[in-house]
Amino acid sequence: MVQNRLDTIFHALADPTRRGMLANLALGEKSIGQLAKPFTMSFAGASKHVKVLEDAGLVLRRKVGRTHLCSLEPEPLGEADRWLRQWEKFWSVRLDRLEELLEANKDERK
Amino acid sequence: MVQNRLDTIFHALADPTRRGMLANLALGEKSIGQLAKPFTMSFAGASKHVKVLEDAGLVLRRKVGRTHLCSLEPEPLGEADRWLRQWEKFWSVRLDRLEELLEANKDERK
Repeated sequence: MVQNRLDTIFHALADPTRRGMLANLALGEKSIGQLAKPFTMSFAGASKHVKVLEDAGLVLRRKVGRTHLCSLEPEPLGEADRWLRQWEKFWSVRLDRLEELLEANKDERK
Repeated sequence: MVQNRLDTIFHALADPTRRGMLANLALGEKSIGQLAKPFTMSFAGASKHVKVLEDAGLVLRRKVGRTHLCSLEPEPLGEADRWLRQWEKFWSVRLDRLEELLEANKDERK
């Protein structure tokens, strides 16, 4: 269901640690230990975050011996972006108005 | 703090009722009762969702007599979109590859 996918994707993105992990995975495949390191976080803590990313389809995990290797699956980010872009006309209109106000203000000060 | 704003924005979007409320507000200012109606939801339930949207800066609430009127504030959607667009190259590369595969598959079947 599209609704539920968006729920899990946006939920996964609503945390700075998970967004940081995605940025780290953008550089290449990482073990859970490697993903935990920049956050001085336990393996169990990092593993929970990875699970949330996995549930959202943002991370693919494969086992090599005793190591879990994670890689980035970017498609759900595109899905979230497609939802957000429907709203583009709303925020761009506001920005246009802001620019007009700034221009008007500049003219007044001349 | 930018991190926290993104947390609250993505959290607000991670729910179909709240996304539905935003769609309803896109049509114009609404009371909490009007926002609750399509979801056959109590006033208190709707009010909680509106609070989450307000915390994310997505909704502005004003009181007219005993009625709370809500309006859409679209800027945080643009902020979330700007974060997502950094990832565009990742998902668009994947889509290009998918297209190539589909083309190759079509040629084979010829």
